[in-house]
Amino acid sequence: METTLLNDDFSLENLLDNWQTLTHAQREEVFAMLGRIDQEELFINLSSDYQAEIFEQIPHGEKRSWIRLLAPDDIADLIQNLGEETQAEALRYLDYATLVEVKALLAYAEDEAGGLMNSRFARLRPEMTVEEAIRYLRAQSKSQIETIYYAYVLDRTQMLLGVISLRELFLAKAGSTVQENMNTDLVTVLQDEDQESISKTFSNHNFLAIPVVDENNVMKGIITVDDVVEVIEEEATEDIHKIGGMEALGEPYLDISLPSMIKKRAGWLMALFVGEMFTATAMSHYEHDIAKAVVLALFIPLVISSGGNSGSQATTLIIRAMALGEVRLKDWWRVFSRELVSGLSLGVILGLIGLLRILLWPGKETLYGEHYMLVALSVSFSLVGIVLWGTLAGSMLPFFLRRIGLDPATSSAPFVATLVDVTGLVIYFTVASLFLKGILL
Amino acid sequence: METTLLNDDFSLENLLDNWQTLTHAQREEVFAMLGRIDQEELFINLSSDYQAEIFEQIPHGEKRSWIRLLAPDDIADLIQNLGEETQAEALRYLDYATLVEVKALLAYAEDEAGGLMNSRFARLRPEMTVEEAIRYLRAQSKSQIETIYYAYVLDRTQMLLGVISLRELFLAKAGSTVQENMNTDLVTVLQDEDQESISKTFSNHNFLAIPVVDENNVMKGIITVDDVVEVIEEEATEDIHKIGGMEALGEPYLDISLPSMIKKRAGWLMALFVGEMFTATAMSHYEHDIAKAVVLALFIPLVISSGGNSGSQATTLIIRAMALGEVRLKDWWRVFSRELVSGLSLGVILGLIGLLRILLWPGKETLYGEHYMLVALSVSFSLVGIVLWGTLAGSMLPFFLRRIGLDPATSSAPFVATLVDVTGLVIYFTVASLFLKGILL
Repeated sequence: METTLLNDDFSLENLLDNWQTLTHAQREEVFAMLGRIDQEELFINLSSDYQAEIFEQIPHGEKRSWIRLLAPDDIADLIQNLGEETQAEALRYLDYATLVEVKALLAYAEDEAGGLMNSRFARLRPEMTVEEAIRYLRAQSKSQIETIYYAYVLDRTQMLLGVISLRELFLAKAGSTVQENMNTDLVTVLQDEDQESISKTFSNHNFLAIPVVDENNVMKGIITVDDVVEVIEEEATEDIHKIGGMEALGEPYLDISLPSMIKKRAGWLMALFVGEMFTATAMSHYEHDIAKAVVLALFIPLVISSGGNSGSQATTLIIRAMALGEVRLKDWWRVFSRELVSGLSLGVILGLIGLLRILLWPGKETLYGEHYMLVALSVSFSLVGIVLWGTLAGSMLPFFLRRIGLDPATSSAPFVATLVDVTGLVIYFTVASLFLKGILL
Repeated sequence: METTLLNDDFSLENLLDNWQTLTHAQREEVFAMLGRIDQEELFINLSSDYQAEIFEQIPHGEKRSWIRLLAPDDIADLIQNLGEETQAEALRYLDYATLVEVKALLAYAEDEAGGLMNSRFARLRPEMTVEEAIRYLRAQSKSQIETIYYAYVLDRTQMLLGVISLRELFLAKAGSTVQENMNTDLVTVLQDEDQESISKTFSNHNFLAIPVVDENNVMKGIITVDDVVEVIEEEATEDIHKIGGMEALGEPYLDISLPSMIKKRAGWLMALFVGEMFTATAMSHYEHDIAKAVVLALFIPLVISSGGNSGSQATTLIIRAMALGEVRLKDWWRVFSRELVSGLSLGVILGLIGLLRILLWPGKETLYGEHYMLVALSVSFSLVGIVLWGTLAGSMLPFFLRRIGLDPATSSAPFVATLVDVTGLVIYFTVASLFLKGILL
């Protein structure tokens, strides 16, 4: 079975590429078929949730040698994905020094700098000569430090003074000191900085690693760009799920159990449904109008969905621009003025198409009655208002949410659509009564 | 003006973090205030679109020294962002070797491996000893190669034989050859591979650089993970914009001109509007039903929006899972069966809430008439059908789009909502006629 899925190709590359598309049982089966060396290679390269899956099924006697394959930051990630019982067991298998490090890392939230960082980095003293520094880094190759290509210069209190790359050491004048050659214009992140802000720092600077410090500039560890790649994808996935109108799943689609997925979708769907109930309430206010002019009902879905669509565009744009740091809270006025123009233009465009749709429709007199012109004007003018309102509401809601400390991505496309549906009905029937009062209404 | 925006902090970090939030005029002003060294530092670290903005405004005589600050791959990116006239001028300022490289890079599409790669990488011969290799790499520190930390072992025909890191060279036995120590289980990308697939390769493997080869395994260049960070964010932004129901902007929100932004939004908004017009057509088929039972009209927005919301959830989930490689075309049946269960469960939940909403509403007899029970059942049963249909349509559409060679993200939330609105009306009135035929209808 698994051979067809993997096309009989058991290379590390093919396994890693397709691991997430196998079922749990298939992964177990394939893993059992591999030799020990291939198993270890695969284990080391998998993400921590799949490492945990494998670690849980390994016989107790062998668990020690498997967990010791990993660096402290990877062990901390693995442990966070284990069941309670296996967690305690895993910690027992660590040597004392690693245990202390892993426990320190576990104290940080997973989505903070401290939770992402590796505490094993190359340290240099400022007074070392470049030759000493190169020899020292070369000797460190064997150790479990994350990279020997960037070295951090610390004083006796572990304060970060500067950074120097192995390449810069190679280029430095013989006999000069680390201090004379290091870079002191440092880009750092704080240990409690959240991962969204860290990934922004990485995408603004082309660095391979960034040091993590506390408020006193004492160095705590480094974050490398390869860890950030996963973070950026995670953050984007979270935002996309929220924009789609649900809680972020937090697990791959085919891995998450059906009940938890339904739970994560049902919550928002129910909330939206309850919100949308106000449309029924709004509609019952206009029941007599509809009874008198059924023709008005025909255009309700068209009119309100246009508000929802334009609101969905606006909110999606602003949520993403905020996530990328392109738009900040204080830019709300610039955004408002841009969206005012956009909303008006888009509204006029749709209003015109709507007008033509009714006026050019064959058999308009039979379908829409003798006052089809007034109906057309009602639809057209309310479209301008509704699209403008949808655009403004959709673009301002993320600012409001961020202002009160919530995630702007909560302002999902369906959320804005629901909001605009209710108000859209009010706009539509108000405009219609202006045109049709005393004639149809 | 610009000093308040930057809080009087002109450090490189603050400039880079806030550059995109400044207006064009502010950026020009700030740049002019900086000393030459800071200007260069800023220029090198900005993304190619902002480099192009600066390059355009630099006096002709100085352009040569500015463009020569950059590596060939960055020059190629910069040139792609320049106006036609400045492009030709920029190419004239390059030395012959760089010109040849830049022209080769320009021949690749920007979103292919070839367009992302740097053609200056460290090469080793298999028969070199590790000492020779280390000396050679050390000597290369001065050159413009992208990294000396990974070296690629090529034969005389430039075929890629293996890769070895500087760290591994440090650890290798003295006197042994590169060939004896290099890794031959290689992960490579093809020169015409698209950037989405490349970013997947990087997030599946924790590599800092991946070699680019042609179909004969001849080495063409390397892609480093820091370049991929930008690509991943770009890809996610594109998908998010599409999911929000518009063309991807391709530029930061505050930078894109209003007319181009309106154009990118109007296209889809008009298409959705035209699609949504079918709701008016569908509604006119039921005009007599509505005239006889106006109460049915009250629930139209509630019922159809639920289909749209559940479809939006499903399509967003599948689009993202496809982009991450979690779900492939051949998984459609697994997805279908999961969504069948999800759609039914979600439909039943909303159907029950809808039923209770009507049956427990105070004054239901006056509002909804004596047959409120039958109305409630019509709403409830059609909700089950519509939510199920929305979920299935939303989840299958991305598969269909990918199958016919289109981007699954085109199946935006508003697109699915529009599709489901029209069919939702048909479901609603069909279910209602089953319950109410001969009574209200």
